[in-house]
Amino acid sequence: MELKKDINILIVGLGLIGGSYAMALSKKGYSVKSITRSRSSIDYALKNGLIKDGTTEVDPSVIGEADLIVFALYPHTFVEWITDNQYLFKSGAIITDVTGVKTTVVSAIQSILREDVEFIAAHPMAGREVYGVENSDDAIFHDANYIVTPTEKNTEEAIELCKSLGETLGFARISQLSPKEHDDVIGFVSQLAHCIAITLMTCNEMEHLEDYTGNSFRDLTRIARINDAMWSELFVTNKDALLHQMDLFSAEFQRLRDMLQNEDIEPMREMMRKSTARRALFDKNNEERK
Amino acid sequence: MELKKDINILIVGLGLIGGSYAMALSKKGYSVKSITRSRSSIDYALKNGLIKDGTTEVDPSVIGEADLIVFALYPHTFVEWITDNQYLFKSGAIITDVTGVKTTVVSAIQSILREDVEFIAAHPMAGREVYGVENSDDAIFHDANYIVTPTEKNTEEAIELCKSLGETLGFARISQLSPKEHDDVIGFVSQLAHCIAITLMTCNEMEHLEDYTGNSFRDLTRIARINDAMWSELFVTNKDALLHQMDLFSAEFQRLRDMLQNEDIEPMREMMRKSTARRALFDKNNEERK
Repeated sequence: MELKKDINILIVGLGLIGGSYAMALSKKGYSVKSITRSRSSIDYALKNGLIKDGTTEVDPSVIGEADLIVFALYPHTFVEWITDNQYLFKSGAIITDVTGVKTTVVSAIQSILREDVEFIAAHPMAGREVYGVENSDDAIFHDANYIVTPTEKNTEEAIELCKSLGETLGFARISQLSPKEHDDVIGFVSQLAHCIAITLMTCNEMEHLEDYTGNSFRDLTRIARINDAMWSELFVTNKDALLHQMDLFSAEFQRLRDMLQNEDIEPMREMMRKSTARRALFDKNNEERK
Repeated sequence: MELKKDINILIVGLGLIGGSYAMALSKKGYSVKSITRSRSSIDYALKNGLIKDGTTEVDPSVIGEADLIVFALYPHTFVEWITDNQYLFKSGAIITDVTGVKTTVVSAIQSILREDVEFIAAHPMAGREVYGVENSDDAIFHDANYIVTPTEKNTEEAIELCKSLGETLGFARISQLSPKEHDDVIGFVSQLAHCIAITLMTCNEMEHLEDYTGNSFRDLTRIARINDAMWSELFVTNKDALLHQMDLFSAEFQRLRDMLQNEDIEPMREMMRKSTARRALFDKNNEERK
């Protein structure tokens, strides 16, 4: 079910994700305004029809009319913004976010938020290796997952509204997890993957790699082009879950290393057959959902 | 420079790579015959015009007329085949291979080979997640690298012939390394990447991952679908170089883990900036070569 057409939507933070939200929603005829730090981002978004109006100020009238506010900020900036400006929200407004870690952020926001405003958290699992509103592209949502992470403080209405936002944005799959479950899963499938990619790209000073690589290395290091300010904050914000996933990975990697050292062919082949079966299942499920 | 048109080419071992060689060469009008273990592979290759003739026998007339013989076999099978059948080669024949590791294989073959036959080794860095002649596709060579690995036993003529084969097959980049340099590079960019992918796919029993993954995890685990017989043999055949690369990776991964544990943000960001710069350079060089 898509969002009702007559709501006022405000996006705070016009980067790649905020801009892509704005693009998807404006294309469908929603009224989207934005508050962001840089004037040039507003100018770009206005010129390209991503938003109806925008400002670099904390404008009480823009905030006060918004029914749904999407925060596309770094975690610490998000908490600061709410602390400073939440008195400007309309009573009954729903706020959501795009933050890549949930436990600490959801608990921080929900504990300080006014009683008459509801925060329902979501994680749009989409991105690119470039940033900024100029690289906005709502096509990044089309084969992607959108995870809503409610707590016991959330109402069914807000959860449904948040899922409707995901559908309206065009996500392929909408699912629901607790913040803790989300952070464990994301620690594994996203953050650990990024840790591996940056390690692979820095562990060896070998040069002229491009003459000798197949697609494997290119695939494994695509995400090694990384926004260091954002990802270091995301890693630390999800520290315990990510450390756990890194340790699981390290132990299994060490097990493979020891098999190789000892030339234990059969256990090595067993591990490869298991990885093949798990990855094949993964492809199959993806295909079936298409 | 492409291969001369009037040479007789024999491919021993008609799997994915042998079949793709046959396809590329037959399309360009070369006379390609094949010897392989399975009758059905020969039948498929004949029916689809990959080869002019083929047999499952060690046929003296087919071997005796060949000017260029490509071995697309597992390393240990390759050495056995040469030991048993090299008496059938024509004097002056050139043999080459497609093996993914070089130091041990090149030295084993060159030490047993007849004086009047020359082995020039090559590694076509192309593949798919499926096997068998039925999946042959010469398009896999078009954006790929081809590495020739001569030793002091090789003549300039054979090295040039081998590079001509790579060009005729349609590889994007032809380069030359010593067997030792090759194995170090491959241990890093290919074998280590496969070790990481299979570890990532087996280190965590989490289910329903497909609901929660972005493209990162999909990219990092694409090669986790792996031929366990072939890759376990390749790993063991390149054991020392691969163990060294695994240890470099582990040490760097552990360094990142400790930074996270201690919340050392600045060194973590420095590592991310380094990975970003190295990966961007890599993309740039790839683009420029296209």
